[in-house]
Amino acid sequence: MKAVRLHTYREPPAVEEVAEPEISRPFDVVVRVGGAGLCRTDLHVRDGWFAEVVPVDLPLTLGHETAGWVHAVGSAVEHVAVGDAVICHPNISCGACTACRAGQDMRCVQGLNFPGVTRDGGFAELVKTSSRAVLALDPRVEPADVAALADAGVSAYHAVRKAVPALEPGSRVVVIGAGGLGHIGIQCLSAMTPAEVIAVDTNPEALKLAEQCGAHHTAEADGRQVERVRELTGGAGAEVVLDFVGEDDTVRDAFGMLVPGGRYLVVGYGGTLTVPTLQLVLGELEIVGNAVGTADDLAALLRLAGAGQVTVRTALYPLEAFGDAISDLEQGRVRGRAVLAPTTGSGS
Amino acid sequence: MKAVRLHTYREPPAVEEVAEPEISRPFDVVVRVGGAGLCRTDLHVRDGWFAEVVPVDLPLTLGHETAGWVHAVGSAVEHVAVGDAVICHPNISCGACTACRAGQDMRCVQGLNFPGVTRDGGFAELVKTSSRAVLALDPRVEPADVAALADAGVSAYHAVRKAVPALEPGSRVVVIGAGGLGHIGIQCLSAMTPAEVIAVDTNPEALKLAEQCGAHHTAEADGRQVERVRELTGGAGAEVVLDFVGEDDTVRDAFGMLVPGGRYLVVGYGGTLTVPTLQLVLGELEIVGNAVGTADDLAALLRLAGAGQVTVRTALYPLEAFGDAISDLEQGRVRGRAVLAPTTGSGS
Amino acid sequence: MKAVRLHTYREPPAVEEVAEPEISRPFDVVVRVGGAGLCRTDLHVRDGWFAEVVPVDLPLTLGHETAGWVHAVGSAVEHVAVGDAVICHPNISCGACTACRAGQDMRCVQGLNFPGVTRDGGFAELVKTSSRAVLALDPRVEPADVAALADAGVSAYHAVRKAVPALEPGSRVVVIGAGGLGHIGIQCLSAMTPAEVIAVDTNPEALKLAEQCGAHHTAEADGRQVERVRELTGGAGAEVVLDFVGEDDTVRDAFGMLVPGGRYLVVGYGGTLTVPTLQLVLGELEIVGNAVGTADDLAALLRLAGAGQVTVRTALYPLEAFGDAISDLEQGRVRGRAVLAPTTGSGS
Amino acid sequence: MKAVRLHTYREPPAVEEVAEPEISRPFDVVVRVGGAGLCRTDLHVRDGWFAEVVPVDLPLTLGHETAGWVHAVGSAVEHVAVGDAVICHPNISCGACTACRAGQDMRCVQGLNFPGVTRDGGFAELVKTSSRAVLALDPRVEPADVAALADAGVSAYHAVRKAVPALEPGSRVVVIGAGGLGHIGIQCLSAMTPAEVIAVDTNPEALKLAEQCGAHHTAEADGRQVERVRELTGGAGAEVVLDFVGEDDTVRDAFGMLVPGGRYLVVGYGGTLTVPTLQLVLGELEIVGNAVGTADDLAALLRLAGAGQVTVRTALYPLEAFGDAISDLEQGRVRGRAVLAPTTGSGS
Repeated sequence: MKAVRLHTYREPPAVEEVAEPEISRPFDVVVRVGGAGLCRTDLHVRDGWFAEVVPVDLPLTLGHETAGWVHAVGSAVEHVAVGDAVICHPNISCGACTACRAGQDMRCVQGLNFPGVTRDGGFAELVKTSSRAVLALDPRVEPADVAALADAGVSAYHAVRKAVPALEPGSRVVVIGAGGLGHIGIQCLSAMTPAEVIAVDTNPEALKLAEQCGAHHTAEADGRQVERVRELTGGAGAEVVLDFVGEDDTVRDAFGMLVPGGRYLVVGYGGTLTVPTLQLVLGELEIVGNAVGTADDLAALLRLAGAGQVTVRTALYPLEAFGDAISDLEQGRVRGRAVLAPTTGSGS
Repeated sequence: MKAVRLHTYREPPAVEEVAEPEISRPFDVVVRVGGAGLCRTDLHVRDGWFAEVVPVDLPLTLGHETAGWVHAVGSAVEHVAVGDAVICHPNISCGACTACRAGQDMRCVQGLNFPGVTRDGGFAELVKTSSRAVLALDPRVEPADVAALADAGVSAYHAVRKAVPALEPGSRVVVIGAGGLGHIGIQCLSAMTPAEVIAVDTNPEALKLAEQCGAHHTAEADGRQVERVRELTGGAGAEVVLDFVGEDDTVRDAFGMLVPGGRYLVVGYGGTLTVPTLQLVLGELEIVGNAVGTADDLAALLRLAGAGQVTVRTALYPLEAFGDAISDLEQGRVRGRAVLAPTTGSGS
Repeated sequence: MKAVRLHTYREPPAVEEVAEPEISRPFDVVVRVGGAGLCRTDLHVRDGWFAEVVPVDLPLTLGHETAGWVHAVGSAVEHVAVGDAVICHPNISCGACTACRAGQDMRCVQGLNFPGVTRDGGFAELVKTSSRAVLALDPRVEPADVAALADAGVSAYHAVRKAVPALEPGSRVVVIGAGGLGHIGIQCLSAMTPAEVIAVDTNPEALKLAEQCGAHHTAEADGRQVERVRELTGGAGAEVVLDFVGEDDTVRDAFGMLVPGGRYLVVGYGGTLTVPTLQLVLGELEIVGNAVGTADDLAALLRLAGAGQVTVRTALYPLEAFGDAISDLEQGRVRGRAVLAPTTGSGS
Repeated sequence: MKAVRLHTYREPPAVEEVAEPEISRPFDVVVRVGGAGLCRTDLHVRDGWFAEVVPVDLPLTLGHETAGWVHAVGSAVEHVAVGDAVICHPNISCGACTACRAGQDMRCVQGLNFPGVTRDGGFAELVKTSSRAVLALDPRVEPADVAALADAGVSAYHAVRKAVPALEPGSRVVVIGAGGLGHIGIQCLSAMTPAEVIAVDTNPEALKLAEQCGAHHTAEADGRQVERVRELTGGAGAEVVLDFVGEDDTVRDAFGMLVPGGRYLVVGYGGTLTVPTLQLVLGELEIVGNAVGTADDLAALLRLAGAGQVTVRTALYPLEAFGDAISDLEQGRVRGRAVLAPTTGSGS
């Protein structure tokens, strides 16, 4: 089958022919890929950022955000059957450790086990994952249309869920980054909270998308974005800042935008957070890191999507056009989420 | 009356004679001081740290942690009467703004209004405060014995209360700094949670006090404290780190001591918090600043003290010995909390 | 001035001339009434239901849901001034007890202190209340338009706030009673949660109002309402039932409508709740009583109204038409809330 | 093998010889029983109470509270191996439904699936259960010593966990019923909260056990227990009532013992809860049903036991003495928990 393979860090991956994955253990599930989302994490994997955190042998098939149809299952898989439309939670978890039993799939004692990051992923015709990482979709849903929920969506939802208790009537929430995650996060905020949403992005096109998704105000990140948020909040600041970028600049901005007692939810990564403890203490600020989300989050998000409260904006590319997709991403030309779809198509 | 007055930043305050405070508005309360605690914040005030945050005209009477007896009240003060033993919440709040109505006394729209920091404080025979800042004590309690609860105690309790939901059976909590706040925090943790407490301090005497307060383990901060916490937690780390120091060193240590999903509660201040967003995100860490506490916190803490679940270790000094007290504090010779008591004594 | 006075339990109150209330204590506030809402509680007061719970001497001016303009203030009232548009929280609280300091205005140690129930109320040209019971309105707001928020609104909001944590995406909430409280509750649910709202009422006109307020489905209470809710929820039941009626019938219905782990929020009263402990235990049901709400709730609700997320449907009556208003209420002819407005009008 | 079998409702079960259970599916686990607790639920099963809720074919092996050693496992069981000491969560759950994924094992979409209630249970030499229902024990623990944690313990802990947020310093909690569940609940309360514990029981011996477990006060249920609780709480009542009995009498008592805003946690069952909605609403009371607990609860409780914070008082009977055990239970002669232990002993 075809797959997008990384052979050397910091060099372009290649589309090539590889062997199909096979069932070898009771919990294995092989999924025929309907669509697999592309994001900055793929760039970070390509560039070797995770090599130290979770060492992995190259070559590696990329793609950690996948939906499709069940192609084959192990003997212990009972909740889905061959042919079912499914979406894949990005982490393979054991189901037996304390974290898993409490619904904390990302804190499984076995650590990160991500197709596309630590083992072969979804930029391929077939991907092998595991029982607990496979959630059934409504059969009327086209997998490629929701693939972006598997990682971008669940990450945004997970952070929004932590924002909800801090967002009462009259509260303000700033969303930094109105891209793949942000445009879903804004829709979740509209559906789940009474808060006023202010979107911040460097790109005016992204801000237009933010407005279509329900943002009440937008602020172009042109150097005056902190002032602009202050103006829009009557000088007070926002109760919550959701940062889908996480670079040095956005971290600095976030502290300038928060009310005392405010909550800063960090989803994007790349920069360094720096703040005097005096500021942290006097302001009683809360800073919360967010790593993907749980299967429970993904199920809730699918219900939002099923009710029409969340819609993903996707840009589809055939698998072979991986190079174009990655260059559009790097040039900031993607609105919403880029999704790679193998041309072999529907999951028979 | 006598008072400890600061005339010039970064120079020693002096004990001198000043006019007694008088009632001028309906909510005013003048308290005859039974005891007033001394802490690093007094050093920071002396050294001008707060001058930028909350500008104030010198000279200023220091002392922000006070208990005593009601000496005079304004026309609208109904919940205490002259002669009542009382403890003073350190912040004067309006009672009418949204924050006050929700019980968030520290976020009063009028901002910080602290006797001893922004107006004349409790290192004096009398201190003027306001209705909402005065809580009645059990008449059998000696004010000097509980003065340290007014700021050190309530700050420790406030942070512990935020730790409680994260401390289930089998959890571990590290307390960095076993001094004025820390030794109260450890007792609150013992009374309120099933967690195992690990105390960390540079001073072996402080660690002895920590053990007497209920710490299960101690680790001297000799450079190997992170490793030691790792050993004591079977390599996993602690669910919560409570940092009563907040310097660069302790911030760095804290991140080395936390489990994934762990909560870092910062109470002390002075250093700078620096952490890559990748580490924050992958670890799903939470960082929470803590500023003093609410009147509700102080009332709860008084109930703990009344039930014998919390006892303050105090070192008493007469007002005139302010210089000795401050030099003992700076040399690390105080166990628990230093408290200044005017010699005129009991509040008749 | 004119006032609606109750002289004998279970007999009609009369509109008559009484002396104007005057300031006698530092916290007193006299409000010129712009509008005062009428509801079933007024019927219960008339019929002596509260006489045992909170004994009171007759005659009594009715009216516990009031908005208007400040007419006079005591010496300790600082947060509002004569002429300000205000809304009155229905309970007068002390501000100094543990409950008040934690923002729990309804649990004030001084007990219920309700104009219109335990002392002279708002069906009059002027009403005397107290500092903490008076919240400033945006000066552009007409008090009669928001009077119904003072009790109906805050009671509905308070219950909805307790529903929020149980209402995730895909959840269902049943609102029993789409009248004065219910039509506000439905709007709060729409603004604050992603849940699907099912309104139940005996009156088809009330169900139309429910739909205008955002209910996704309606069920006429014709004896088949439990079945209907089961059908609408795919047999599962609803995560939350909000009961604004609280009679024997609605209690019985509620238990038939809940999922395992469901939450039953009771706001209306009149009937008796009866359930076998086996059913309660096997279903892990939660039953929660709701009494009015806090000043914090009222402030939040005003922000929702200010943002246009909540609008009150009111039927205005002049004070003299009190008899008509009460008979419309008893005959089920009021949509939304009946509000009495003294003809002397705007608060100069 | 030997097993205690129920052939006819309302007649005594008999100890008889039956075939050993065998592995037939990938998730099956057969456990060699070390000990299995006996409680009033066994009487209710014998008497047919559950026959309507969950129909089951007789004969049935009783016993729903089991610990022992793994005897055999299916092909998909990876987290325990033959010979491991284990404790059995009483419900067999699917692991794939929304409830299971969120850690709500008792709300599994497959419904109640309880060995000893809906299928053959643990009063036998071997019991067949399923992968997710088996938690590994510390190998140094004797299974019979902790068997009572599998149902009595986890039920008590689950309810206590819901009590924790309502139990601040100075709070009071009443525990009704100081038997198998109650004596564990009291120890959990002592370890996890700062609250004052008041135990209520009809039996003076049970109250002695309650004191040994950490109760601060006791009240014999002699008709004056409500008054006694009022006295012990200065007239105010308790913030929480934990009812491990759930009969008509204890329900009535509970409402007499609660403060406004109090929480009534119902664990025992048998009676009917009856309360006017006016009382529920004015008092803002919360009533919460509790059904067993989650695997996460059981794991947390095992950590409490491992740390010596909870110890089970058990009365051991050989399997053949089932009749004696049941008659001791019915006559109120058991202190703590009766546990049946097959004589074949340690799990080799």
